[in-house]
Amino acid sequence: MLSNTEKTMEKIVNLCKNRGFVYPGSEIYGGLANSWDYGPLGVEFKNNVKRAWWKKFVQCSPYNVGLDSAILMNPEVWVASGHVGGFSDPLMDCKDCKTRHRADQLIEAQAGISPNGWSDQQMMDFIKEKGISCPECGSKNFTDIRKFNLMFKTFQGVTEDAKSEIFLRPETAQGIFVNFANIQRTTRKKLPFGVGQIGKSFRNEITPGNFIFRIREFEQMELEFFCKPGTDLEWFKYWKDYCHNWILSLGIKDENLRLRDHDPKELSHYSKATTDIEYLFPFGWGELWGIADRTDFDLTQHQEHSTKSLEYFDQEANEKYIPYVIEPSLGADRVALAFLCEAYDEEEVGEGDTRVVMHLHPALAPYKACVLPLSKKLGEQAGKVYERLADLFPVDYDDAGSIGKRYRRQDEIGTPFCITYDFESAEDGCVTVRDRDTMQQERIAIDALPGYLGDKMHF
Amino acid sequence: MLSNTEKTMEKIVNLCKNRGFVYPGSEIYGGLANSWDYGPLGVEFKNNVKRAWWKKFVQCSPYNVGLDSAILMNPEVWVASGHVGGFSDPLMDCKDCKTRHRADQLIEAQAGISPNGWSDQQMMDFIKEKGISCPECGSKNFTDIRKFNLMFKTFQGVTEDAKSEIFLRPETAQGIFVNFANIQRTTRKKLPFGVGQIGKSFRNEITPGNFIFRIREFEQMELEFFCKPGTDLEWFKYWKDYCHNWILSLGIKDENLRLRDHDPKELSHYSKATTDIEYLFPFGWGELWGIADRTDFDLTQHQEHSTKSLEYFDQEANEKYIPYVIEPSLGADRVALAFLCEAYDEEEVGEGDTRVVMHLHPALAPYKACVLPLSKKLGEQAGKVYERLADLFPVDYDDAGSIGKRYRRQDEIGTPFCITYDFESAEDGCVTVRDRDTMQQERIAIDALPGYLGDKMHF
Repeated sequence: MLSNTEKTMEKIVNLCKNRGFVYPGSEIYGGLANSWDYGPLGVEFKNNVKRAWWKKFVQCSPYNVGLDSAILMNPEVWVASGHVGGFSDPLMDCKDCKTRHRADQLIEAQAGISPNGWSDQQMMDFIKEKGISCPECGSKNFTDIRKFNLMFKTFQGVTEDAKSEIFLRPETAQGIFVNFANIQRTTRKKLPFGVGQIGKSFRNEITPGNFIFRIREFEQMELEFFCKPGTDLEWFKYWKDYCHNWILSLGIKDENLRLRDHDPKELSHYSKATTDIEYLFPFGWGELWGIADRTDFDLTQHQEHSTKSLEYFDQEANEKYIPYVIEPSLGADRVALAFLCEAYDEEEVGEGDTRVVMHLHPALAPYKACVLPLSKKLGEQAGKVYERLADLFPVDYDDAGSIGKRYRRQDEIGTPFCITYDFESAEDGCVTVRDRDTMQQERIAIDALPGYLGDKMHF
Repeated sequence: MLSNTEKTMEKIVNLCKNRGFVYPGSEIYGGLANSWDYGPLGVEFKNNVKRAWWKKFVQCSPYNVGLDSAILMNPEVWVASGHVGGFSDPLMDCKDCKTRHRADQLIEAQAGISPNGWSDQQMMDFIKEKGISCPECGSKNFTDIRKFNLMFKTFQGVTEDAKSEIFLRPETAQGIFVNFANIQRTTRKKLPFGVGQIGKSFRNEITPGNFIFRIREFEQMELEFFCKPGTDLEWFKYWKDYCHNWILSLGIKDENLRLRDHDPKELSHYSKATTDIEYLFPFGWGELWGIADRTDFDLTQHQEHSTKSLEYFDQEANEKYIPYVIEPSLGADRVALAFLCEAYDEEEVGEGDTRVVMHLHPALAPYKACVLPLSKKLGEQAGKVYERLADLFPVDYDDAGSIGKRYRRQDEIGTPFCITYDFESAEDGCVTVRDRDTMQQERIAIDALPGYLGDKMHF
């Protein structure tokens, strides 16, 4: 089995492009800077990732409900949240080769430390002192840092003036905060309760990269969990463990995960505690989740700016207060990439033969099974098995080439079970089910397939 | 049972707001012109609508696969598709009261005819001749028509110049066309095959309205079905019937549907045939689907503009050609609204009592069931039934108030089954299941619930 450091992004990206997981966006027009489209297998896979999150964070949680708020919001939201004033990258230009860089990334790449929470001046001083250089031309001749707001702006209505300027949301979280009172009122939920949301966000990153790890148009899976002040650190721990368990239950090995607590200097001014859950990608450690105790910062800001009360009346304690909030925020594309990297393997399968196999958890695999007629003569009957299963979950059908070749094709796209319909199947009502990971085969009644596959998908 | 013309938007909108289906977007900041957020029930419901489409149009179709392409695309895509040049509304200002109007909508509203395919001059002439007036002030003093492009624009990268100008996609279809060759190559699909996609699109409509019927940020469910030229009209009929059957199977009555074929004058220049499937909303007939035979127009345009071949090699016929395409394009928010309108009812339930009930198909209902302990003393055991079901699909739990009151609350949000756990349940392992529509009750084994509910959800 390949360890994560032996896997290469190149191989994973090529598999994704060639098997229909992910294509470069707008490719026939030369693309659009690091945009990506999820192909036929990718959309099923990513939908499964989103469903797996929704199942555990919304559907099965006795505390939480869901939300799907709009991407376009009233621009005052972003004033209140601090994004208009402070959501920007610290950019420096190299005066010699005219390339543009993020100061924080230069420091991280060349000094190996994370300048989270540093002021611009601190970063500029550090870059000068340590002789950080332009990665393009090697010169040390940078401009001062200039701030560049990361929000995409657009215009609503018939004129393009400042009045009609609105933004594409840079995070889904604020959609939850501004709906807090509506959700609490209509669900009649008592604290503690959470609101989960999956949706697109947009950030005008200067340096997107690493395939679908850092992209400008990305999808988030965010939970805002509201609780009574004083109980927040307890819930912070609860959700940190919950996130950790979720990803372990879907097949990520703990050795490829790292929980990194922010030290007090690194913390945002409103946060009492923050932990990043990071994954060991082939290109190094990368953040999947930020889990933060955001105190009552967001609701307080929105209450002040909107002048609408966002207090909660606690019947038991007979008092009003603004709830504290715990936010586990996960990038859907990032965690999808982590699952792909974890799943990828090249294996020797005897006599010098190797196979590429994606060991995706059956809940995440694009196809749950592939139906293979042993001979094209069996197409009609095998087709019936296919139709019966396709009514329940996505399955593939393949009648081209040798069984061994068909197994390899399914291994490479992570299909956990190959179901061969042979000449005895009509008589005994059974098919041969071959397991992707063990390559073992067993004979199973056709009528038992839905239950058999359903159990395997459970997590 | 209320007929559709007896239902009012006001009642349906109020139910949506008060029960957590749909809230006004950014409401605490005074909203953002006709934007809407899907609340806890709305997000489950709309996800079910999307899943129901995906199941039949992608998962179960032997022809089709899925795609999830990016919202932000290379701007050349919109030059090729004709959206940069021609995707605009014909606007006129009233010179007296300074309000702005769409010429085509003025004609439709006041003359009762649809000016599809008319030139601007034809519309201006008609408005003058027929004395069409300003709906705000009654004056007939309009400016000439000016064109207003409906695409939202934004800027990618660090400068806001024309070079970095990109658009939010106004339709998901083009994402499919530009990926045609990649999809065909990687799936090795032979014609005919289709590609389905669900995703957000954005149109800077001058007059959004009718709740979630016409919104600027909306979601589409589009299929582009590629076939051999000459077989297109046959497939056009196939998909028209398929769409019609899909919506009937989810509980829309045929009497509230209308299939309107465009007459030759109305057809776009590239279309051989177009049919709208319309629904009788409380505010009148409104389009759900446009189903069009778009010939080889789109792929030909993209081939010309990108200079990449989008021809298909037909092995059987040993020839190359650009496929024809059939496009059934459905608005997810619109069809969701149609399901809500269809489901809404007010019923007399004896002794002068009435109930509001949403007769949603169980596949679409936000909660599939609600577990009710007959007494709070039974909370622990009833909670176990809840947990077991919540692992499978979204279910609610309610222990507040009389059983009758709890039934009414669930009726109003469309929960098809109420499951009462009573004092005998621990002994006989059974619960009482009450049907939302018939209000009949039956005793069912707890172990049989997953199968019982699963069957009801099937469509």
